[in-house]
Amino acid sequence: MKNKNIGKNCKIADTSIIFDNVVLEDNVKISDFCIIGFDPQKKYNKKLIIKKNSIINSHTTIYSDSIIGENNLIGHNVLIREKTILEKNVQIGSYSDLEGYCNIGEFTKLHSNVHIGQHSNIMSYVYIFPYVILTNDPIPPSEIREGVILEPFSIICTRSTILPGKKIGFGAFVGANSLVNKDLDPETIGTGNPFKIKNDISIIKLPNSKKKAYPWIDRFNKDYPKNIKEIYKKLRNKYLNSK
Amino acid sequence: MKNKNIGKNCKIADTSIIFDNVVLEDNVKISDFCIIGFDPQKKYNKKLIIKKNSIINSHTTIYSDSIIGENNLIGHNVLIREKTILEKNVQIGSYSDLEGYCNIGEFTKLHSNVHIGQHSNIMSYVYIFPYVILTNDPIPPSEIREGVILEPFSIICTRSTILPGKKIGFGAFVGANSLVNKDLDPETIGTGNPFKIKNDISIIKLPNSKKKAYPWIDRFNKDYPKNIKEIYKKLRNKYLNSK
Amino acid sequence: MKNKNIGKNCKIADTSIIFDNVVLEDNVKISDFCIIGFDPQKKYNKKLIIKKNSIINSHTTIYSDSIIGENNLIGHNVLIREKTILEKNVQIGSYSDLEGYCNIGEFTKLHSNVHIGQHSNIMSYVYIFPYVILTNDPIPPSEIREGVILEPFSIICTRSTILPGKKIGFGAFVGANSLVNKDLDPETIGTGNPFKIKNDISIIKLPNSKKKAYPWIDRFNKDYPKNIKEIYKKLRNKYLNSK
Repeated sequence: MKNKNIGKNCKIADTSIIFDNVVLEDNVKISDFCIIGFDPQKKYNKKLIIKKNSIINSHTTIYSDSIIGENNLIGHNVLIREKTILEKNVQIGSYSDLEGYCNIGEFTKLHSNVHIGQHSNIMSYVYIFPYVILTNDPIPPSEIREGVILEPFSIICTRSTILPGKKIGFGAFVGANSLVNKDLDPETIGTGNPFKIKNDISIIKLPNSKKKAYPWIDRFNKDYPKNIKEIYKKLRNKYLNSK
Repeated sequence: MKNKNIGKNCKIADTSIIFDNVVLEDNVKISDFCIIGFDPQKKYNKKLIIKKNSIINSHTTIYSDSIIGENNLIGHNVLIREKTILEKNVQIGSYSDLEGYCNIGEFTKLHSNVHIGQHSNIMSYVYIFPYVILTNDPIPPSEIREGVILEPFSIICTRSTILPGKKIGFGAFVGANSLVNKDLDPETIGTGNPFKIKNDISIIKLPNSKKKAYPWIDRFNKDYPKNIKEIYKKLRNKYLNSK
Repeated sequence: MKNKNIGKNCKIADTSIIFDNVVLEDNVKISDFCIIGFDPQKKYNKKLIIKKNSIINSHTTIYSDSIIGENNLIGHNVLIREKTILEKNVQIGSYSDLEGYCNIGEFTKLHSNVHIGQHSNIMSYVYIFPYVILTNDPIPPSEIREGVILEPFSIICTRSTILPGKKIGFGAFVGANSLVNKDLDPETIGTGNPFKIKNDISIIKLPNSKKKAYPWIDRFNKDYPKNIKEIYKKLRNKYLNSK
């Protein structure tokens, strides 16, 4: 707790452990029984940086050599290993396990108990529901790592498993409990085990309505930036035209 | 630990944190590294009440504005959020994540790593096995919450996922690894992904026997009240006649 | 921390709790917020023994009456209950939940969030990927316990569930997200829900190659003994000839 790199107005619970190799920007809040900057073997040269206004809930362990962006909200009992880069306004649900060597884009939300294998590439505005697993080993066990790619605005429903190296396209929808063994094109739906690609996402309607349910930003924008629709259009252009 | 609302014979580990907004009745035991009455933003007016004889195992976090009933047994690494009401003799397995705004009836048991979405309604004498998920968002992501309903004596086997708003009837049986996308009638069996409703539960026999395996109270009554059979009959009457 | 049974060069974090009923051999490392030798009701006569060079990561709870072998690596937030015997060089991933009354053979690796039901018998050189569940109750709920058997060199991929009493043979491969409801013969592949036994494991080739991917020891031997190939042959002889 003698760490000199602690910004203004940080609130750090007495029971939490902040190692020297940590930079906390202003207004960071850390609740009880956390371990911040874990590196028992002194393996990492780089610091752990937690940017301003971020909140770390109890019983969470974060390794050195990672960056937690501005306005992040990290749940209880989370594990974040080395070389994880979280951009601004990311949310990580309780019991989630980020194995490191991974990037997560701005405003992406992981619900509870999500497992992110090393070398995953999760872009911005993605929504990941509980118990999703992103795998990375194509011939288990091996030392080969093929990370999963989730493009912006993709939606991965509860308990889906994505096999190594598979890409989920912009705005695509993976149904609950799926085993994803092939790439999913932008704005399409895939479900099940065995995994079947079903349709364009525009067929999903709101309950008891003829209105389209997707893109979800047309009906759900809690905590997102005011210009979310512009961002959506811009990113859609970028990712759909790159196909 | 200056909290005045601590009953007789409570045993609270020195490392655990009991916030002021907590009432512990007599004989409550709390082991190490727990956070009891979590409410960092002072959002909740109501206290957390833990009723007599309950045991809270290590590394568990319980939010304010909840009630833990008498004789509850809460595992290690559990998270229980606000507006959770647990009746008497409930068991919650280690790593379980109760997201709040939910009721759980008496003598219901959750095994390890069960995820209970907000607005779930879990009645009495239910048995939930490891890694079951009760979801609640019908068009993810949204702010709509449709809780799952589990009627008394229903059995939800390991790793099943129940989709938003689905009801599992009295004494019904959901097989392991199912994805439940429709209501299940009382005393029937449903399994699989896609989910198939198969049969009346009376077809399940004990191993190497012609005896019926269900209702399970005929062969398994450890830790249940002495008049469990009467309770069963009464509840069966109530729930089967309401159809 | 007055425990007299602590070997040379042990590093124990100040915040961790080591109960009296514990023996730590030389060079054991225990990081923060662990509970070592948990036995609040004084139920167990036997000590918890942690053999030399083992590492226990943060927020882990280990019950009395268990043995953690030499060179074990135990992750963060792990729970290991009574009557668990881990042989040498075992790895247990973060969030794994070992329910007790189980043996795990040498050099076996469990990745994150693996659930091991009581009376499981996991032999040596097994590889278990994240979120695998070994169940044990054949007519849930009951007091009958039929443990799963995993023979040496078997591979259980991510999120598979193995039903009570099922045996996975020597070198057999269970694909991701399977629900295993029958025994799997040595050196065969089984996948899916419903579970299908597909083929001899020799059909799996390395990516972009005609070389066989299995046995994996021909291509992957990180952290294994130098004579791993001899061990493999010897065990293969033993288990294949016993059929």
